[in-house]
Amino acid sequence: MSPELSRLSVNQETVRQLSLPELAESCAKAGVGQVGLWRAPVQEYGIERAGKLMKDAGLTVTSLCRGGFLTATDPAERARALEDNRAAVDEAAGVGTDTLVLVSGGLPPGDKDLYGARERIADALAELAPYAGERGVRLAIEPLHPMFASDRCVVSTLSQALDLAERFPAEQVGVVVDAYHIWWDDQVPAQIARAGAGGRIHSFQLADWITPLPAGVLVGRGQLGDGSVDFRFLRRHVEATGFDGPIEVEIFNEDLWARDGAEVVAEVAARYLEHAC
Amino acid sequence: MSPELSRLSVNQETVRQLSLPELAESCAKAGVGQVGLWRAPVQEYGIERAGKLMKDAGLTVTSLCRGGFLTATDPAERARALEDNRAAVDEAAGVGTDTLVLVSGGLPPGDKDLYGARERIADALAELAPYAGERGVRLAIEPLHPMFASDRCVVSTLSQALDLAERFPAEQVGVVVDAYHIWWDDQVPAQIARAGAGGRIHSFQLADWITPLPAGVLVGRGQLGDGSVDFRFLRRHVEATGFDGPIEVEIFNEDLWARDGAEVVAEVAARYLEHAC
Repeated sequence: MSPELSRLSVNQETVRQLSLPELAESCAKAGVGQVGLWRAPVQEYGIERAGKLMKDAGLTVTSLCRGGFLTATDPAERARALEDNRAAVDEAAGVGTDTLVLVSGGLPPGDKDLYGARERIADALAELAPYAGERGVRLAIEPLHPMFASDRCVVSTLSQALDLAERFPAEQVGVVVDAYHIWWDDQVPAQIARAGAGGRIHSFQLADWITPLPAGVLVGRGQLGDGSVDFRFLRRHVEATGFDGPIEVEIFNEDLWARDGAEVVAEVAARYLEHAC
Repeated sequence: MSPELSRLSVNQETVRQLSLPELAESCAKAGVGQVGLWRAPVQEYGIERAGKLMKDAGLTVTSLCRGGFLTATDPAERARALEDNRAAVDEAAGVGTDTLVLVSGGLPPGDKDLYGARERIADALAELAPYAGERGVRLAIEPLHPMFASDRCVVSTLSQALDLAERFPAEQVGVVVDAYHIWWDDQVPAQIARAGAGGRIHSFQLADWITPLPAGVLVGRGQLGDGSVDFRFLRRHVEATGFDGPIEVEIFNEDLWARDGAEVVAEVAARYLEHAC
């Protein structure tokens, strides 16, 4: 592996067209030593089996996506969400990663109270954080771009994510610094410093911001270098805090999914070197 | 006019299917006494003529949309933008409103420097603000939702808009508090208080946040009450500062544009009473 690639992790969803064995093979071929995984394909392959596959291929699993969706007001729905998140923690430990990414959840139907929804996340974390901590798994709250605030994640900024995380020990709850979601925010340098000082940068992810956004906006992320995000600027701030963990590339993009997956992995590595190193 | 409707202004773009005379007639019929106008239809109708039409119909023009797009790095393009903005100021004065809304502009092609782009806006405002002030026109910087940060407006939060506006006298430069763009931001109550204390709330606009967003995301705004925005919450904060100006409803929505415009104006008035009063 080239030393420049030693920090790179390729998130599985970037190349969702690849099976887990194909992902492992493509990473080895491209000189990539780390991967981020998703629950559904890992469950399908078998959790321990997926962990062994990655380990045998010399790959480190840097994160599992995802738990969360903790904003329900309905008690039965809330109980189901907590149960599912405990399962996600178990799966993270089972597949051999210390980091579970949380997408916190949007507003319940008809509800307009963002503040209340954020408090319900805190209540849920109070139950989940010790459970995760006992299993050696860190919960990583991911602020999602404000365009997802109503239907996916009421946590829209690093500042809001840290306000939640800091109620718990850093080894239990931290944040994801995802360039795609936060690149527009002028508070980010200060909030990265805050997160780093508290040891709460549990994941650092990259995708580029491109327009026009597609309908539904979920799968409109760009390959590194195709958009407006200054990755070196963000990386400089993240590393100024002493962070030396993985840098994970997670792109949701129909064009990338339609291509040969191994070729996309190689392109991610090349773009990473060109735009984020 | 019902006293409850006395603060309501209907922005022309909400019912772009209406000509200016039809807009005036529909507002009169619905008991609406104020309108926000757009440059292109006003230019087409004739600026003074449009002003006289509204005045004769007993309508106050609460704003003109829009100037801005002040982020160019190319000197010729910058000069053209300044010239166009001086024309927009003249048109605002000519049509009889004291408020010109500014959409500040996105990143130039290939540029990733949001901070530099925001500084270029400040440089342009230094030229435009006195020009506007001399003509009795206030420039109102509109923070646009962060999903527009790359291609339309690098000013994404009230805080950023105020950082720019406060470099100039309040009677020359203020901000737009547009519910659609800022509803997700937990800094908004504090920033509304800051804006109000400085006399810088030059426009207060409403549209609802609905999902899924359409491709391109520009025309995905919802009729009041159809989405996630708590208008009463925002209005309470705006009015706590002493603001008693117009409350303008500006919705870009294909379904509203396809309907009978007079019916939409009446519906806006009814929804305003139901959700924002």
